Amino acid sequence: MTQPDTPSDLPTAPRRPTLALHDVVELTRQICDVESVSGNERELADLVEGVLRPLRHLDVTRDGDTVVARTRWGRERRVVLAGHLDTVPVAGNLPVRVVGEGGGRELWGRGTVDMKGGTAIFLALAAEVGATEGHEPDHDLTWVFYDHEEVASDLNGLGRVLRNSPDLLAGDFAVLGEPTSGSVEGGCKGTLRVDVVTHGVAAHSARAWTGHNAIHDAAEVLSRLAAYEPQDLVVDGLEYRECLNAVGITGGIAGNVVPDRCVVTVNYRFAPSRSVEDAVAHVREVFEGFEVTVTDAAPGARPGLDTGVARDFVRAILAATGAAEPTAKQGWTDVARFSALGVPAVNFGPGDPLLAHKDDEHVVAAEIELCHRALRVWLTGEDA
Amino acid sequence: MTQPDTPSDLPTAPRRPTLALHDVVELTRQICDVESVSGNERELADLVEGVLRPLRHLDVTRDGDTVVARTRWGRERRVVLAGHLDTVPVAGNLPVRVVGEGGGRELWGRGTVDMKGGTAIFLALAAEVGATEGHEPDHDLTWVFYDHEEVASDLNGLGRVLRNSPDLLAGDFAVLGEPTSGSVEGGCKGTLRVDVVTHGVAAHSARAWTGHNAIHDAAEVLSRLAAYEPQDLVVDGLEYRECLNAVGITGGIAGNVVPDRCVVTVNYRFAPSRSVEDAVAHVREVFEGFEVTVTDAAPGARPGLDTGVARDFVRAILAATGAAEPTAKQGWTDVARFSALGVPAVNFGPGDPLLAHKDDEHVVAAEIELCHRALRVWLTGEDA
Repeated sequence: MTQPDTPSDLPTAPRRPTLALHDVVELTRQICDVESVSGNERELADLVEGVLRPLRHLDVTRDGDTVVARTRWGRERRVVLAGHLDTVPVAGNLPVRVVGEGGGRELWGRGTVDMKGGTAIFLALAAEVGATEGHEPDHDLTWVFYDHEEVASDLNGLGRVLRNSPDLLAGDFAVLGEPTSGSVEGGCKGTLRVDVVTHGVAAHSARAWTGHNAIHDAAEVLSRLAAYEPQDLVVDGLEYRECLNAVGITGGIAGNVVPDRCVVTVNYRFAPSRSVEDAVAHVREVFEGFEVTVTDAAPGARPGLDTGVARDFVRAILAATGAAEPTAKQGWTDVARFSALGVPAVNFGPGDPLLAHKDDEHVVAAEIELCHRALRVWLTGEDA
Repeated sequence: MTQPDTPSDLPTAPRRPTLALHDVVELTRQICDVESVSGNERELADLVEGVLRPLRHLDVTRDGDTVVARTRWGRERRVVLAGHLDTVPVAGNLPVRVVGEGGGRELWGRGTVDMKGGTAIFLALAAEVGATEGHEPDHDLTWVFYDHEEVASDLNGLGRVLRNSPDLLAGDFAVLGEPTSGSVEGGCKGTLRVDVVTHGVAAHSARAWTGHNAIHDAAEVLSRLAAYEPQDLVVDGLEYRECLNAVGITGGIAGNVVPDRCVVTVNYRFAPSRSVEDAVAHVREVFEGFEVTVTDAAPGARPGLDTGVARDFVRAILAATGAAEPTAKQGWTDVARFSALGVPAVNFGPGDPLLAHKDDEHVVAAEIELCHRALRVWLTGEDA
């Protein structure tokens, strides 16, 4: 079939590279080299829009730097495949270095893991799958390339589109291309952030007995955290390991003052069988006797692997990749946004999640190719 | 006698007020209203220099914004009287408000306690005592008005003059006009600041088991602080209450990261019978097993009230004020700089030290007058 290329006559796109849509590894390298730290996704969003907008089988909508491309085949079910365009800040690790050759070839650099491999796969498949008449898959498809995933939740492009045009993201099953080392990771844990605050009475540190030290009072808060034994909870067959951690602590006014306030910022990652309310109640119980203020909360997502489309997806992917059974996603991901809409969602993409955000972020090229092939087989029933 | 006034013909001093050298309460109000937050002492130093330089009984030296004025009567002993010109930042509490009338009259505003009352007394006495021939006191006098007391120790004007011209500050006894509520406070505690650091392994807070939380490890550091029982030590008859406090704590990388480092900043205020080395050893013992880094240290000062001049001073002041026996100065003051030179030094001045630096800083006018009279009697043997 014909590989669509970047149209050269778009008026607003000077000096765009010709994207290698026929080679997902090269495509990954190319879009990694278009720097797109959160807030700076425009150039990459323009490139993606430039690829997809001319294609007859897709209806393309742009919302800020999010590009949504949908088929309208009138199928009974719709699958959403979403990947974010942004990365955490570059750490001197761009442009991408290609290390090694053949099957062991690796891409090193920002975004190679989180998550331009997954995004490249989705972009290549969006352009290809269903482009030829008579070869449309069994499900309608919605491809989403979105901005601001790596920063504060209220900036998230997927969240913004859900608020602005929820119908654009409607579907029966969703796949997020976040790195999972090519396995299927179901659902995700919820996350809750609270400030545990102690109060004292300020005093000169040479006359400390006239005050009361709020930092000393935080000893008990930290002791409870250190002694806390998190639970492992099985939800719909997948095991979620909960975590309760101080992620920040601040206190102190000056080098000669007994401080009157200390704030321990605590992050609780909880199994998706708990609601946010349950999580808040649990944390309040752990820190009973202390002032607890909720600053941020997002529910988890149950894996939802018992629905028909999800079961088909898992079966197809495992067959194509030889990967093990699905496991639980421990980190919060945007699957929870779909879950909140009642859309079961999984994470599936190339790259070791433990390398995400690291200076030595890198991915094995063959893993990108394997994930691409597996998704292609699932969507089209054909091997390339 | 004639009150020297600000000379009106100094070329560099436009619009200077006429200082009320005959009325220490009014003089205190006047010099409080010349804002002199640390770093901005020039105008006030110019005023002080303008008062003292024309006087025949004083040799005046200027070093930055420190003014030193010395008599040269060839007496056997020399007394140094020193006060700083600067204040902590103004908190909307200037110009000074005069509240009440008669004996209960109060001055409210920045500097009224720390320490423009003491500075006004010294300025008035510097201009008066020994100005009339045949009325010189038994001791030579060195008056010091210095800058940058309220900020980092390395900026301190007294320390700078000690480095530049140590002979200028030589003496047998020193009085600092810091607020003591009109009692005599001897010596001062030393101060030591250390960072107690815990180290962990950073990890995503949703996969905390792959890391190690440095903030949780600080629980033990804070527990030892909370359980610490400070000592009260008697030195040369005065009781110093030691204090060991966390004055700051910081840790945390981001809201979703298990932190790999936590720093507890600890301030130890120790009796002047301990050396800095003793203090460091003690703190290292308290935090055994943890990384301890010394960031700041200054020795204390023994009260030194057993020398002849000091004994005479205490006797005269107690007789004039009816104050109780001398007590220990708990906070570190510049007496320690004199003590390090082998010069016994005490703190004596109007104002409640607990009100220093507070927004509601204020002093009873009668206390300024009482301290002024007591020092005058001591120096001249005459009551006004």
